[in-house]
This record gives sequence, structure tokens and C-alpha cells, in this order.
Amino acid sequence: MEINGVTIDNTYAEAFPTWIARVIITAVTEEYALKAATEATGFATSAIGCPCEAGIEGVLEPDETPDKRPGVSILVCASKKKLKEQVVERLAECVLTSATTAVFNGLPNAEEKIAVKLHFFGDGYEYQKEVGGRKCWVIPIMEGEYIGEEEFGIVKGVAGGNFFVMGENQMAALMGAQAASDAIQAVCGVITSFPGGIVASGSKVGSNKYKFMVASTNEKYCPTIREKVPDSKVPAGIKAVYEIVIDGLDEKAVAEAMAKGIRAAVTVPGVKFISAGNFGGTLGPYKIELSKIL
Amino acid sequence: MEINGVTIDNTYAEAFPTWIARVIITAVTEEYALKAATEATGFATSAIGCPCEAGIEGVLEPDETPDKRPGVSILVCASKKKLKEQVVERLAECVLTSATTAVFNGLPNAEEKIAVKLHFFGDGYEYQKEVGGRKCWVIPIMEGEYIGEEEFGIVKGVAGGNFFVMGENQMAALMGAQAASDAIQAVCGVITSFPGGIVASGSKVGSNKYKFMVASTNEKYCPTIREKVPDSKVPAGIKAVYEIVIDGLDEKAVAEAMAKGIRAAVTVPGVKFISAGNFGGTLGPYKIELSKIL
Amino acid sequence: MEINGVTIDNTYAEAFPTWIARVIITAVTEEYALKAATEATGFATSAIGCPCEAGIEGVLEPDETPDKRPGVSILVCASKKKLKEQVVERLAECVLTSATTAVFNGLPNAEEKIAVKLHFFGDGYEYQKEVGGRKCWVIPIMEGEYIGEEEFGIVKGVAGGNFFVMGENQMAALMGAQAASDAIQAVCGVITSFPGGIVASGSKVGSNKYKFMVASTNEKYCPTIREKVPDSKVPAGIKAVYEIVIDGLDEKAVAEAMAKGIRAAVTVPGVKFISAGNFGGTLGPYKIELSKIL
Amino acid sequence: MEINGVTIDNTYAEAFPTWIARVIITAVTEEYALKAATEATGFATSAIGCPCEAGIEGVLEPDETPDKRPGVSILVCASKKKLKEQVVERLAECVLTSATTAVFNGLPNAEEKIAVKLHFFGDGYEYQKEVGGRKCWVIPIMEGEYIGEEEFGIVKGVAGGNFFVMGENQMAALMGAQAASDAIQAVCGVITSFPGGIVASGSKVGSNKYKFMVASTNEKYCPTIREKVPDSKVPAGIKAVYEIVIDGLDEKAVAEAMAKGIRAAVTVPGVKFISAGNFGGTLGPYKIELSKIL
Repeated sequence: MEINGVTIDNTYAEAFPTWIARVIITAVTEEYALKAATEATGFATSAIGCPCEAGIEGVLEPDETPDKRPGVSILVCASKKKLKEQVVERLAECVLTSATTAVFNGLPNAEEKIAVKLHFFGDGYEYQKEVGGRKCWVIPIMEGEYIGEEEFGIVKGVAGGNFFVMGENQMAALMGAQAASDAIQAVCGVITSFPGGIVASGSKVGSNKYKFMVASTNEKYCPTIREKVPDSKVPAGIKAVYEIVIDGLDEKAVAEAMAKGIRAAVTVPGVKFISAGNFGGTLGPYKIELSKIL
Repeated sequence: MEINGVTIDNTYAEAFPTWIARVIITAVTEEYALKAATEATGFATSAIGCPCEAGIEGVLEPDETPDKRPGVSILVCASKKKLKEQVVERLAECVLTSATTAVFNGLPNAEEKIAVKLHFFGDGYEYQKEVGGRKCWVIPIMEGEYIGEEEFGIVKGVAGGNFFVMGENQMAALMGAQAASDAIQAVCGVITSFPGGIVASGSKVGSNKYKFMVASTNEKYCPTIREKVPDSKVPAGIKAVYEIVIDGLDEKAVAEAMAKGIRAAVTVPGVKFISAGNFGGTLGPYKIELSKIL
Repeated sequence: MEINGVTIDNTYAEAFPTWIARVIITAVTEEYALKAATEATGFATSAIGCPCEAGIEGVLEPDETPDKRPGVSILVCASKKKLKEQVVERLAECVLTSATTAVFNGLPNAEEKIAVKLHFFGDGYEYQKEVGGRKCWVIPIMEGEYIGEEEFGIVKGVAGGNFFVMGENQMAALMGAQAASDAIQAVCGVITSFPGGIVASGSKVGSNKYKFMVASTNEKYCPTIREKVPDSKVPAGIKAVYEIVIDGLDEKAVAEAMAKGIRAAVTVPGVKFISAGNFGGTLGPYKIELSKIL
Repeated sequence: MEINGVTIDNTYAEAFPTWIARVIITAVTEEYALKAATEATGFATSAIGCPCEAGIEGVLEPDETPDKRPGVSILVCASKKKLKEQVVERLAECVLTSATTAVFNGLPNAEEKIAVKLHFFGDGYEYQKEVGGRKCWVIPIMEGEYIGEEEFGIVKGVAGGNFFVMGENQMAALMGAQAASDAIQAVCGVITSFPGGIVASGSKVGSNKYKFMVASTNEKYCPTIREKVPDSKVPAGIKAVYEIVIDGLDEKAVAEAMAKGIRAAVTVPGVKFISAGNFGGTLGPYKIELSKIL
């Protein structure tokens, strides 16, 4: 299959389940909501070495938030046990401390819930209040009052949706990946947790040489050692490969993000080949075939 | 003491020692260096609930970096034991994965060093190379090659330098804090680890009511409960208080940041009072008096 | 009328007709589309002293643009004669010169059209090509090829929609205006042409003292001279007034932007009063009453 | 000559004189200073079709500005006659109207001065005041008071300093140009007036085919028509050329910017050739040889 002269590999992305919470952060202006969301979703690229995966889902208009202020929606992804701890810590350290922020449950209809009890921080001065139909706690703080819901819906979502952008040189592949990342920002229900939405160093599980490593470079996709790796999957003429990794609320959202991202990447001159990563079905139950979604 | 009509409290900021590493992150353009640095310093506001404190120290010109590319300098602050683990994890998960990045030791003259061995990720394909006089490892990755030093100097620095910006209303205090944060960005050797450099919810150690809490709201500085707290320290007419918290390589840099920040804050209309936080000398050995640094 | 405790003045904004062109600028990534759009809409705040009024209407997903790349939509507003000249000059100097850009007509269904013939720049090497169903010219340039439509629809729109955000001090009013500007960014069909969408120095037609001035400070709304101006319209307790000025494709879009902006402004603490500017109906045919749109 | 494996052409950039004013814009925070500066320097890429050339020279710390607030320095370049008109219009329409701004003369030691009399806008309510040792006018406006100097030094500077970044494909050349633009931002005394500091469509004076055109595509540097243009200067294997154009206060600053820019560009993979534009010495008195400055 070809789009815009770029070959689309006949393969699929393999993805796996994850638990996800969605937090709506509002603030006096969009800038302050973004500052809080950026800090709260930092150090959260990959569950391999970070305590969770997290990212900004999108910016919300005042009309779309419970307190009618500008907002940002974030997704936090982890195992069920770690998810609660991470939402608590990230809201406590990165959002409660941010200027003018309030937080609301972004999945009010989810069947499962986690409790995120920040109100003890009020040391007895806290009280309850309804804001936009939501039951919130108000905590007196130095800037005035912090307002937050303390029950957050969680759903079983999909992690590890992905595709590879390959280019005739590094800058072409990078701009292709950037165009893909830009396009995915508009998709509802997904995040790309890596820096700028782009992965420069995809990994395989474990290591052939160093047994203490839980993950190591995916040598089959490394262009500079193409001649040294017998079963290299780097096509002829490819000098750089970037991976876009997507977590989302459901398979449909992840597939939509993959499709939009790929269609954007192939508009960039020098992008030559699109593929996706899988482990032959051993990792996860979701198989998202490139040919079906495009 | 008064500057620009704003009262400067006759008090001092109490600060304490911390171990600090400085990492130079370079990339093909400033934008990609900033993306990596932002992710690597996220979820790192306060050692109370985050695994470390971290922030962006400044942007570096190509002339100032070992590989002559645009760069960003970050500081990571923690106990000596945690520092090594955090630098390893944050570089492995947030910088090695970022597009086009390389990392270099930002404290080459420090006596103490930590080892940050990422090269095992190369699974045997890695090799050594000198870049800009630095001994680096080159790791084949999907985008090409990642280059990084693996020995980082660490120094005993100063954490918790701080001052309070108080305003006649919340927006005046917030813009005063923002002007302070802007001014501090130009100071070498310091970071402000909270979101946007501003703390909305300063805390005290422990809690009066909830014994399981390690920290709780600093009720003496909370304007909305001024009448309920017998020994409130909120001056009459103050409606909001923001704290600027500064970590730095030494006391001099922290004091310079405090001075520049305060002088910027008092230019903002509606800022009325500047103070600083201390615990009567029980917390740390550094006492930075406002009257001496201004 | 009151919203959120803020008084809404019983008045209307007076607006007047203007001709408007909408240009879709696409580029390899959103960043480069924004750079071109920012330059092309600069020096275009007010028709009083700038050659036109212009601004960014919004960011477009790849799906929404003719060449399926990230895009930005801008509006350019002027008299019919000046409009053609300004669209030609701004596209020629600020977009054709920008990296990777293409331009498309954003009002394909408009009855009236203007010709924007940039293809002569190709010096004979230019040629025609269809892109996304649009008849374009391709011009060989140093970066490769520039692609652009040369016929742009224009419509009779509405200029000068406005409201005033008044605060108990300057920072409260400024953040109220900023929240309004943020909210208006999400409205389709409008721009706010002033820097950051906010006007600090609203004007009246002519001058009482200096007959050579075509416009001068609107002294009735200047808080610092409230006591000197006999018929000052600054309410008691107001220390700062910002104006939000909106141009749009039709009255409905302008009214929607005013409503969203006002509803956002009143969420900001310290904002006390909302009003709007009119000239008793002498200036323009549109009267947008605050009480009706809210 | 080669740097980093990239060929540096044995040629020179030809530049010519221009008059320049430097305006210091301050505001309550850096963000608002930047918003005003961006609007004031828009639609100002090239003197061919824009009323002037203008750009942001750099960000200033509070310590470096007369009123001790965050600031941005801009340069405005034009013929002496046009310069006065353009500084007046751009300050009146884009800075006086911006939130919280003040303006100061950035060339206080220049022998020649221009008068920029905005105080008539005050309609008689204006008054004089000294700020930071500068004689200013204070104008009552809706947000409070605008403060500005009205005498600006101007100097005979250098326009049209330039170099070409050529790449094996478009994205490599673009990122090379971007790295150059990033590096030049740190140089004092210069601006790059084109969008993002990069020119995609360099031009020649006049046109061979269309006699009514004052400028047209520089076909000798257009890669897509390399085979059609007999004396093409596009080296073999080059697919894209970007030009960086620099205006500066003197030849030394322009040469420094060129050197820093070129050294940054050659670090980008896929950049293959650096050259510069000249007209055989017919255009201007300045000849900046690449081999001498590197």
C-alpha cells in the first residue's frame, strides 16, 4: 500500500490494556492550566522506567469545564494500583501547588472510581462545596482557595498503539514524526506520552548481551547498524526511524490517532516508509492493522 | 524597609543542603532541547512527594556546549543516593528517548561524581568516542546515534531559598510572582522547581489535625482564614500570597535569585508586602536575610 | 444584570461593516504555519494607523486543509480597495518567504473575489497545478516549490465588536481580559487584531485639544483622571479598563465571541464591571446589546 | 574550506547601509513585552514590499531596562525618512495599545535622533516625568498610564548580511536554517526580519520576463529548475536552499551573527553546502567574506 508515494508496511501495531484516569485542570487563563498540566505529566514517558505514562489530551474551552474557566485535560495511565498513587502524588505536588488551578474528574460516567483525597492538606480548615454540579473540597491555601473533586473515574484503555516514520535522512524522518504528533493533538481520547510526542530510541524487551537490562535498543530498527544486524528491518535507503506511541481511552481512539498521524507524516518530503511495532501477538490483545485504518 | 512603596519584611529565608547534578542537554534546535528538558524535569516540584526536585537552569548558545549545538542546562536536586537513581531514570526515559538529544556533564570540575551508565541500552552495539573533549558513549538507536557522557559531577548545593509575594488581590500577587519568576530565569546556577516557578500552596511540616500527613497547608499564611487563625501572619489588606522557591548551586546564587526576584515583584501594581519563610533556624543552616541581599 | 457577581452594563457595542478575506496557510508542521501567520498579521491592529486589521482565526487540523497539512487560518480586514493590496503584500512578503508554506482561499463560496497574483514572481518558471481540488500556481523558489491559490473570496463582515473589562486593580482587569481573549480563540469566524487580543488604550475619534489628531485617548474611560473628567464613565472603585475588539465574518460570530469572552472574564477575581463601547449609533449599523447575547 | 564536512563557498555576502532605531519595550511580565514586540515587528520582512524591516533583537532582564521591568529590544530599519514614520506608527498602534507596556530609547548615545511624539494622544491630560533617568511622557489611558520616551537615537547600520544553507533535502536544509536562526538570537545588535528568521524564497532585483516586477525568484538558486537554468548555482545533490538575512547596528555584529549561524547550521545532518549572496559589489559597500569570519 502507498499513500502520497510513501510505502505503508503490511503489518499491525500491537497494543495492550492499561488503566487510565482523566483529570480536567482549570485555571484563571489557559497559560496557567498548561503550566500545571505540563509539570503533572512530566517524567511519565514509559511505564518501563517512569512511575506512570501521562500526557496532555487537549485544551478545553471555558464552556467545556465545570467551573467555566480555561482548562486542560490530561490522561494518566498505569496499573490500577499504581494509578491511584500516581494521580494522588501528581495532583498534590504539581497541581495543588500551581497558581489558580482547580481539578475535576474527566470520566464522570466510568463505573470504577479511585479516591484522591487531597483535602487533608487543609488541616481542618477545608470544607465541601458544589461547583458546576460536582461535589468538591475547598482547601484554604496561600493564594486563596484550592477547589477539587476527589473521586475520579478510571477505565481500561489501550497502551502502546504505535507506528514508525522512516526517512531518507534524519531531519526528514523527524519532521514527519513532528507533523504526525501535531495531527494527533487534535484527536480526543489519546495522548502521546514521550517528549514532544516522538520516540527516538524504541526498545525491545530485555537484552541479548546484558541480562540485567529489562529493555534495550531495538537493533533491528537501527539504521546505523543495518549491515551488522543479520535480520535488520530497516528498508534500503532509510537513515532514520522515529516511533509514535499512543495511549488512549479505547482502541477506536488509538486507531484514529494512528491514522491521522500517518496521513500527516506522509505529506513531509523525504519520508519514505511507514511501519508499526508488534511482538507477534505475544504482548497484547490489540492488533491494529495499518491497512485497515487508513 | 521599603522598595517602590512595597514593605520588605525584616526576616530571612531558611534554606538547607541538597546534592545537585547539572546536565547539559543538546539537540538539533533549541526547541528539541527544551522538549527533552521539560519532560526530564517534570513531576519534580518538591522532595516531599516527588522523587527529586528539578528544573531548567537556562538555555545555552551553541558556543557554550561541547558539541556546539543549541542546549538547555537542567539541575536535579536530591539526597546523594536518590540523586544517582533519578539522573539515571530521567536521562534514560526522558532524554535518550527524545529526538536528536545528546547529554553532557554540566559540573566537570566537581570533586564528587556519579556514574550514569546508559550505554548498556546499546546491547553490545555501543562504542566510545570523544566529543568536544568529553569522553562519551555512542548508542545506536532508531533515529541514528545517541551520544552521552556517563560521569556527572555533583555538588552540595542549597535548597529551599524562598520569598513570599503578597498582594492586595490574587491577580496582583500572581503577576508579581510571575515577574519574579521571569527575572530569576536569567540567574545562572539556580532553578525554581514548581510549575511556572510559582508556589500557590506553601506548606508546613506535619499537620495539627491529621497525624498521618507529612505536610499540610501553612495556615498562618492563608488569607481566607486570617480571622480564624489566631497567630495569622497575613498582613492587613493582603488577599493572596505566592511563594517563590529556589534551589541553587551555592548560597550566593540563591541569594542573587532572591534579590532579582523581589526587585521584579515590587514593580507590579498591587503587590504590597514581601516576606520569606523560615522555621526559626531548626530546618537548615542557611539564613538569607532580605535586608542584606537587597 | 449580574453574572458571577459582576455587573453587566445595560448597553451595546456598536460595530460597522468591513471587507474580509480569509487565507488558509499550511506548512510542514503547525509551528511553521504559525510563524508565517504571525508575521503576516503583524502591524495590523487598527485601521486608524495600520494598513489593515488582521489576526489569526484558528489552527486547522491536516484533515481540514486542501493539502492535508497542518494549517492556520487568518482574516484580513480593510476597505475593498485596500484589502486586495494588503492581501497581495502580506502573502508576497510574509508567507511566500516563509519556510514550507502554501496558501489557499478560505472563503471559496463567497460571491465576490479578489485576484492575488503572486505567480509573476516565478519569472516564467511558474506553472499551474490542482491541489486538493483547488486551482493553484506553483512557483520555483530556493527551498523548492511554493504552491498557492490566486483567487480569494471576500465578504462584507463586521468590525469593531467590543466590550470593556473593568477591574478593582490593573492586574485583575488584565487577567480578566486575558481569560476573555483565551476564550475567544475557540470561536470560528472572528479575530482580535490587537496584541494578545487586548487593547490597553481605547480611543475616541478626533481630539478635543489637538485638532490634527484623528484619534485620542478615550478620557471618559481613563481611571487615573476620573476626578478631572466631568462626565467620566469609570465606575467607583475601578482602577483599570481593558477593551476587547473583535472583527468577524458576520454579526452572529462577533456576538458569540463577545458572549464567550465576557463569560470568561467574569470568572476572574477582581473583575467588577463589564461594559461596551458605542457612539450613540452614529458610527455603524450594528448594535450588539450585552443583555441579549448573554 | 570545510567545517564539519560541509563545504563553505569561497564567496562573500554583500550588504548595504540602512538607518536603524532600537526601541526597548518593557511590560509587567516578559510575556506581555513579547506580545507587543511581536505585533510591532510584524509585516516587516523586506523593504521591497513592507514599509520597513523590523525584528526582535533580544529579551532584556529587569536589571537592564530603565524601569526595571522585563523587556524586549527591537530594531526597526528603513530609510531615514520612512524610519521616523514607521517608528511612530508601530509604537502608536502596536505598543501604546498593548497591555502594561512602556517604551525607551535603546540608542541613547546616538548622535542623530528622531522625535516620536505620541503624547498628543493624551488630549491634554498627558504630563512629563523622569523614569530611570529618562525624560518621559505619561499618557492617561484606559488601563492606567502609558509611559514613553519620545526621542530615539538612530544609527547608520548594515542591512542584507546573509548566507545560504543548502541541504541534501528540504527538511535537512530547513533544520540547518533553524539551528542558524536559533544561534543568531543570542547575538547582540542584530535581527533576522523574515518569519522565524528564515527566507524560503530569495529574490533577484527585477525580472527577466515580467518587466513590471521589482523583484522575482532567484532562479539560479532554485533546485527544482536546476536543469533548466543554464548558469544554475545549485551544487549537485542539493535539493533545497534557505537564506538567512541579517540586519545589524554595525558590520561587526552582522559578521558575528553570520559566523554563529553558519557554525550552527553545519552541525545539522544533511546540510551540505554554505554560500552567500552578492551582486558583484554593485549593491552595497559591505563585503563580508565567509572565509574571514569563520
